[in-house]
Amino acid sequence: MEAANNRQQQASPRGGWVGFGLIDRYPFYVEPFHVDFTGRIFLGVLGNHLLNAAGNHSQKRGWGIGALKETQHTWVLSRLCIEMEEMPLQFEHCEVRTWVKNVMRYFTNRNFSIHRTDGTPLGYARSVWAMIDLASRKPCDLITLYDGDILHYVVPEEQDVCPIEGHGRFRFQEPKLVRTIDTYYSDVDINGHINSIKYIEHILDLFPRERFEKQSIRRFEIAYKAESYLGDRLSFYEQVVSDNETDIEVRKFSQENGNALEHKEQGEVVCQAKVCFR
Amino acid sequence: MEAANNRQQQASPRGGWVGFGLIDRYPFYVEPFHVDFTGRIFLGVLGNHLLNAAGNHSQKRGWGIGALKETQHTWVLSRLCIEMEEMPLQFEHCEVRTWVKNVMRYFTNRNFSIHRTDGTPLGYARSVWAMIDLASRKPCDLITLYDGDILHYVVPEEQDVCPIEGHGRFRFQEPKLVRTIDTYYSDVDINGHINSIKYIEHILDLFPRERFEKQSIRRFEIAYKAESYLGDRLSFYEQVVSDNETDIEVRKFSQENGNALEHKEQGEVVCQAKVCFR
Repeated sequence: MEAANNRQQQASPRGGWVGFGLIDRYPFYVEPFHVDFTGRIFLGVLGNHLLNAAGNHSQKRGWGIGALKETQHTWVLSRLCIEMEEMPLQFEHCEVRTWVKNVMRYFTNRNFSIHRTDGTPLGYARSVWAMIDLASRKPCDLITLYDGDILHYVVPEEQDVCPIEGHGRFRFQEPKLVRTIDTYYSDVDINGHINSIKYIEHILDLFPRERFEKQSIRRFEIAYKAESYLGDRLSFYEQVVSDNETDIEVRKFSQENGNALEHKEQGEVVCQAKVCFR
Repeated sequence: MEAANNRQQQASPRGGWVGFGLIDRYPFYVEPFHVDFTGRIFLGVLGNHLLNAAGNHSQKRGWGIGALKETQHTWVLSRLCIEMEEMPLQFEHCEVRTWVKNVMRYFTNRNFSIHRTDGTPLGYARSVWAMIDLASRKPCDLITLYDGDILHYVVPEEQDVCPIEGHGRFRFQEPKLVRTIDTYYSDVDINGHINSIKYIEHILDLFPRERFEKQSIRRFEIAYKAESYLGDRLSFYEQVVSDNETDIEVRKFSQENGNALEHKEQGEVVCQAKVCFR
């Protein structure tokens, strides 16, 4: 504990971090257009708040995507899982807390908790990130990058309060094709990639209204496998695991070189997700 | 001018407004997932900021949808038009200013300006709202409602700085069907209606990538005609007015009572929009 506290007082070689804590708090407000027909925040919007909190937390420590660009590096989100006791309601004031759980050579785990502003916990989230070289698109060694500066931000184990299960493995066996969509202007981010949040929206859109009327989402898990681009056709494959648990695999059929469908009938896996209702 | 200033010092019978100005300012920040592939804010996201500013401005004066519910009334957005000199960039800090331009029996006009936080104007917007009775869904007389309290909030003419053209009329002559979509969970708001912002997204999604690569949106105009609901099928009809100007009409085919398509082949007009590129 003492060692950990001392560590918090050191200055960072990256210059972004001097003497503040390891866990940051980001307030958010649940806007009217950000809630579903039950009056609770859309999971995609919540996911957006988590990613913003992650971005701000990194930036404050000299590890934001802007600073990383100087050395031709960037973060890539590999996995995200969110487990909620209760979804925030319209007009509620809440906050995301986030911290770095640990750092491995090619991955770092970042955890989150979501609270009402009075401190009541509403849920938790886990994420896994890789650092890539922008030119080669290959993963970088996080431990040697910037002389291991990132290790300064790992919280002591006792501060890593995230009681939810870790990321699971997906095992798809002949999942059923349930929908195919084209992707458009609103689906893509500044890099021209279908954005991480849009996949969440498209996946939840597979479920009928009745599902959300009678049940709420307890846990959502997603593993990002490959990028897809504006104009790609996305196919959604469903595998019902149990009454309350459904796995979804998203495959892309690139439209870039004419009709790619002929060549790759199965498409390429873009992401895999698990939706658990309660 | 003196009369106007005096008016600002009166207390409101609705209790929400005592002695502050008539024009409110709402800061917003351009988040990473809120920009398109050119790095500028999505028009739909900007529209959301405008509607939030409108909601907050009304609420502060005792005319928010929460307070109105007590007497079974609510606001309905009828028209919105946005004209931008420049779209805010990712990570920019901006603000919306909004005020009530005037009040007629069945409509009120609310205007907006959008600025960088240093004050530089980036664009303007106009909106038209009706007040309806929640039970009858019929429009109410805004001037007699709450003893004409709303008239306290109308700005003096010289403060109504909104140089953009007013709402135009749409004239569709055999527009061409360009896309039909189904609507899902993510499309609807707390009332179960396809939300006003989602229409903007779906409309802009009709344009190909090249359009946004080469041009930017100068003006966007939308008139909301009828509500559509989760599960409705929406058809988008296009009428090219000139190289840089396209009108879109959205019609719904309700799925509620079996196959309504047979009965109403043309569908019902839900909204009409004009998109002007520069």
